[in-house]
Amino acid sequence: MASLDQASAHGRLRAYLHTTQLLGSIHSTLYYDQNTAMPAAGAPWRGEQLALLARQLHGRQSCREYSDLVAAAEAELATDADPGARRNLVLLRQELERQRRLDPVLVGRIAEAQARGYALWQQAKADQNFALFSPALAELVSLRQEQARQLAEPRSCWETLAQTFEPDISKQRLRELFEPLRQQLPGLLAQAASLPPLPPANWDLQEAAQDQLCETLLLEWGYDASRCQRSRSPHPFSTTIGPADFRITTRIVAGLPFSAFLATAHEWGHSLYEQGLPRSGEHFFPWPLGEATSMAVHESQSIFFECRLARSAAFAERWYPRFRSALGRDAWGNGRRFWRSINPMRAGLTRVEADELSYCLHIVLRFELELALLEEDLPVEELPERWNSGMEQLLGLRPGHDGEGCLQDVHWSEGLFGYFPSYALGHLISAQLSEAMAAELGPIEAQIAAGNEAAILAWLGRKVWLLGRRVNAEQLVEQITGRPLSAEPFLAYLRDKLARLAD
Amino acid sequence: MASLDQASAHGRLRAYLHTTQLLGSIHSTLYYDQNTAMPAAGAPWRGEQLALLARQLHGRQSCREYSDLVAAAEAELATDADPGARRNLVLLRQELERQRRLDPVLVGRIAEAQARGYALWQQAKADQNFALFSPALAELVSLRQEQARQLAEPRSCWETLAQTFEPDISKQRLRELFEPLRQQLPGLLAQAASLPPLPPANWDLQEAAQDQLCETLLLEWGYDASRCQRSRSPHPFSTTIGPADFRITTRIVAGLPFSAFLATAHEWGHSLYEQGLPRSGEHFFPWPLGEATSMAVHESQSIFFECRLARSAAFAERWYPRFRSALGRDAWGNGRRFWRSINPMRAGLTRVEADELSYCLHIVLRFELELALLEEDLPVEELPERWNSGMEQLLGLRPGHDGEGCLQDVHWSEGLFGYFPSYALGHLISAQLSEAMAAELGPIEAQIAAGNEAAILAWLGRKVWLLGRRVNAEQLVEQITGRPLSAEPFLAYLRDKLARLAD
Repeated sequence: MASLDQASAHGRLRAYLHTTQLLGSIHSTLYYDQNTAMPAAGAPWRGEQLALLARQLHGRQSCREYSDLVAAAEAELATDADPGARRNLVLLRQELERQRRLDPVLVGRIAEAQARGYALWQQAKADQNFALFSPALAELVSLRQEQARQLAEPRSCWETLAQTFEPDISKQRLRELFEPLRQQLPGLLAQAASLPPLPPANWDLQEAAQDQLCETLLLEWGYDASRCQRSRSPHPFSTTIGPADFRITTRIVAGLPFSAFLATAHEWGHSLYEQGLPRSGEHFFPWPLGEATSMAVHESQSIFFECRLARSAAFAERWYPRFRSALGRDAWGNGRRFWRSINPMRAGLTRVEADELSYCLHIVLRFELELALLEEDLPVEELPERWNSGMEQLLGLRPGHDGEGCLQDVHWSEGLFGYFPSYALGHLISAQLSEAMAAELGPIEAQIAAGNEAAILAWLGRKVWLLGRRVNAEQLVEQITGRPLSAEPFLAYLRDKLARLAD
Repeated sequence: MASLDQASAHGRLRAYLHTTQLLGSIHSTLYYDQNTAMPAAGAPWRGEQLALLARQLHGRQSCREYSDLVAAAEAELATDADPGARRNLVLLRQELERQRRLDPVLVGRIAEAQARGYALWQQAKADQNFALFSPALAELVSLRQEQARQLAEPRSCWETLAQTFEPDISKQRLRELFEPLRQQLPGLLAQAASLPPLPPANWDLQEAAQDQLCETLLLEWGYDASRCQRSRSPHPFSTTIGPADFRITTRIVAGLPFSAFLATAHEWGHSLYEQGLPRSGEHFFPWPLGEATSMAVHESQSIFFECRLARSAAFAERWYPRFRSALGRDAWGNGRRFWRSINPMRAGLTRVEADELSYCLHIVLRFELELALLEEDLPVEELPERWNSGMEQLLGLRPGHDGEGCLQDVHWSEGLFGYFPSYALGHLISAQLSEAMAAELGPIEAQIAAGNEAAILAWLGRKVWLLGRRVNAEQLVEQITGRPLSAEPFLAYLRDKLARLAD
């Protein structure tokens, strides 16, 4: 059977992809170790290890042997082949052509500019001095523009770069989706100012207590220590090491006692999606169909667990006694005020600390600035002022310096343009899927109150996770909800939540 | 300069070895992760990742490109070349010839037999049923005999296999060195029976308390968290991930409150040797001269820190108050009785739990049995009885079943023959080096009493660690101590220790 399989072009391609997956997962293991265990002085050598693996991976994904394997599998494909087999080859061909169109010299220059950019950005952010980073950013913009030219897709520059994260996305579609957010979120933020005041933040939790709460949360949400491992890292993340090996990390932040808990919920959402991807069956792992379909869908799952579940009123009622007991006293008075404290609904300067009410405005700003940099000739020197006036307009806040302004995120330091919108799309998708879930299962809050998260997990597994890359993000939403993706479910959810918080 | 270097055969070979080191260290990182973080279900995928890297490594070390690089560097070597450059090429040529003489088919069959052997051994040990493992062991013996035939060195079969661990070792030399152990250790063990009784073992330490004691120990012995990381694993080990990235692990064993502490001292000795290897300078990393010279020398360093330091009377006096405070009461009465409790001096059935008085007898038995299996046609079926009678003769103990007898160690399950003697040689080397150290620095116990471990570390660094593979184990001992390696310093040390314990 194995030799028969090897005799077909399909079988040989599958074996090739399997080895590529092995190499990619070795890269992920090193990344995980780097962030959870590696001592600081190990960084330069780790950089060399990762670069070696990246070269091997790039070689495997662009070499003649691989190209011939894909061509042979295409030639072998029967006219009545399974649609899954057909789509796998379409996706592989698309990625192969992208890899082959890029000049290796450009790939090398981008990698070098990323390393330089990251180092200068760290310095510039620490020094609150944008000018230190500005030339590196200009170089990254120019290299990415060249990358888009070489890729020569029937799309704009920004759209071409965004395909890696969000297949089939367009500027026009994003503008349609984001316009209602830009219009309505500032008003909702103003409305939130008249909510009952937040309980005083005069409490914090010991590390061990936070760890115990996270552990309990995970166990109630299907965590299985024989397949998953959790650890600490400077920034929370989730990663997949192998088909039955999943890792998530959190950090404990002094003075922010909900931080590790909400990050655990968020990263667990990412991990559940990965754990639920189709792995058995001919057309899935190690084929593209066995992968997550987009960053927006990935983010929709993490946001669902963080915002729709862990920040919900029913959840707060259930967890209020646990937090009280972990703290050793009652800092809230009742479950309702505990709910209020986990939903600040206040605008801030920093994206990663934003709650669901203001988060998308941070993204709208970044999306517009990326378009300006890549497609509208905005000189990088003008970025700080454009950022600051945008923040004032959208969120009513002006950064005191660029460290808390346009230097706050790591993405641009590595020339990652086109990534940010996925975060906002994740909120929209989560909200629209939640409506469909409620229509089938009954109100989500009722499920949570009944401790029936298993039904929620099963629904997401069946509707989202098990599809892999069969459909793209917007097709997935339409398939599940019967309507095109829109901002309205998200905005309706926020209006309702504000009304209930004010009640 | 870089391009000039690349233009020389020496420079090209160095670049090639650098990449080989990167790949090897990626393998080490996966091994570390496997033992400290990986969830159980990740094992099959991890096995595939490691096998892929092993294939890549084997390919790099035996392929034509590498062979040509070595030959070109040899041709380029000037007659008045630095002895270091010459020795590097000798060592590389030796290893290359070994790799090339082996039939890849045999290499594959050994790898498969190792995997099978390991699985059957686990089962056989758990079931206390040697017959389950016996056929796999017979196959491994036969494959290793074939390996030695293919290597065709002017050495016996066992000697050929032992070269990997202990370069230049011979059976005759080991018999010379081990004979005094076989003659005198049983008498010392009998003498130890009349020592003052051990304090009652009615105490144990909380995990956090053990962890704190290990942390304090490491900090006093030069641990630097920016270069080192420690973690937990099922079996303690030390590994090097990169030129500035060192890891050690320990485990907490309920009911054995000295276990993690002594294992930390032991593994830290291994790590200090690795950290002290020469890395700057033209002929060291990534060349062979930058590596540890043998397993025996490696073991001598770990044994030195565990036995000569952590089990010494002066060390016990200093640490008795710390253990008392960690325990929250006094389980010993005085530092002398604390010292006695960390030196049981009693024979047992299990090698890994043996103290320095009986440890080498476990090795003498294994050495003789390996010779019998590989060179004297001992049928594997007779191994249990030979083991049991050997234990009775050497240690006066007879295993109740094979699980605590000839199935206790993992080594033979993977066909690792020739490794065990390095452990005993480590005790001998540690003792002989300790005499030389005392002659230069003054009594080691006085250094410990004065908290002057820094002088001890500096001495070892200068005399042992910085030499890398310039000389082999016996040359190293002779160079430092002015005499050939012998068992007498070790036996003299034990006689003295017993006298002081009895005092």
